[in-house]
Amino acid sequence: MSSHHIVKEKQEPALLIANGEACSSDLLDNLLEWSPYVVVLDGAMPRVLQRGIKVDVLLGDFDRNELDLEEIKKQQFPIEIVHTPDQEKTDLEKGIEFLIGKGFPAVNIVWATGKRMDHTLANVFNLVKYKNDIKLVMLDDFSKIFPLSPLPSFFEKWYRSGTTISLLPLGACEEIRTTNLRYPLMDEVLSIGNRLGNSNEVAEDGLVKVQFGHGELLLMECED
Amino acid sequence: MSSHHIVKEKQEPALLIANGEACSSDLLDNLLEWSPYVVVLDGAMPRVLQRGIKVDVLLGDFDRNELDLEEIKKQQFPIEIVHTPDQEKTDLEKGIEFLIGKGFPAVNIVWATGKRMDHTLANVFNLVKYKNDIKLVMLDDFSKIFPLSPLPSFFEKWYRSGTTISLLPLGACEEIRTTNLRYPLMDEVLSIGNRLGNSNEVAEDGLVKVQFGHGELLLMECED
Repeated sequence: MSSHHIVKEKQEPALLIANGEACSSDLLDNLLEWSPYVVVLDGAMPRVLQRGIKVDVLLGDFDRNELDLEEIKKQQFPIEIVHTPDQEKTDLEKGIEFLIGKGFPAVNIVWATGKRMDHTLANVFNLVKYKNDIKLVMLDDFSKIFPLSPLPSFFEKWYRSGTTISLLPLGACEEIRTTNLRYPLMDEVLSIGNRLGNSNEVAEDGLVKVQFGHGELLLMECED
Repeated sequence: MSSHHIVKEKQEPALLIANGEACSSDLLDNLLEWSPYVVVLDGAMPRVLQRGIKVDVLLGDFDRNELDLEEIKKQQFPIEIVHTPDQEKTDLEKGIEFLIGKGFPAVNIVWATGKRMDHTLANVFNLVKYKNDIKLVMLDDFSKIFPLSPLPSFFEKWYRSGTTISLLPLGACEEIRTTNLRYPLMDEVLSIGNRLGNSNEVAEDGLVKVQFGHGELLLMECED
């Protein structure tokens, strides 16, 4: 179990571990290295305990009754247990809203993809709901997903030449303009059923910039 | 290798094997049982050959040069090899368009989800592009995905009570009306960023009907 005796300043991204398919230990260890504030959704807790991770918050509706909460409180002291029975929202939404309420500026989300496609798609789609309230990145062993905000916000990040970048609209996304991509977009539209922006790539070492006027857009870094 | 000496009438759904994560042998065997017309995208071919599957069409841009086409032609005789260099479309789109061109009324698609989320999302999103030209079902070990068409078309299928059914809009979908779901929709809107229709369930044994007026909607049957 990693040492956890440091003051958490809420400046680093929190780590939210969702109910889906587990990622590699490498990815998880990298994210845990800076001792983030760790929120775990109830369905993931048995697997998280097995990995010996120190948890700050355990959150869920606890409707499956598999967890021995007293034992968890003892093992993981101090831990906050948050009961969220709202049936209108997924556990991931509740976890994100909890972190927004706590004032975190950013969160890395893992175990939110894989296996059931209804959960996977809902988790990815729900990212855009919170994009103006907290900086979100969803990660798995093959992918890093960023929900982008429309102008006046824009996305900017340094990449190596040749890095694969996919831009995927959720519905339609308009007035997209990119800098430093091999297939640049100049105030163009991407929309489901017509044209997606998958498998673009970085033109040269340097900053990539993506902006758009209306709609919803995901930027994804993926590799096999 | 299954016996393949039957006349294929193009009345049964074709089987399209894409480049993504392989599904279980059980699922693949079930789909192969009726000796469908089998189209394989080039990236999947080595794994398909390992499984001893008789292939009717091998399709792709063959830009990785890993395949010994002469050996494949000998082993798999008769096989049609279709070269599709178009860089504007994904291999899955080309495969679906090939089957539409051949006059198939329906296709089951496997190995199109999993691993890289850019490919997974692009493959799922592209289903809606062809929904009026061919009946499409995308399957993996946990999920069955149907792109629905707007009125006057509607979706109708018999289900057991309690079956989980998710309705996911791609963008916004309007005037959705359902019959025999536990949380019925009565001319309602689902849209990304506001409200999704995941984790609904069948109210009682019988027909479930889903119709909508505008937009794009996926119906998904998923289980762990």
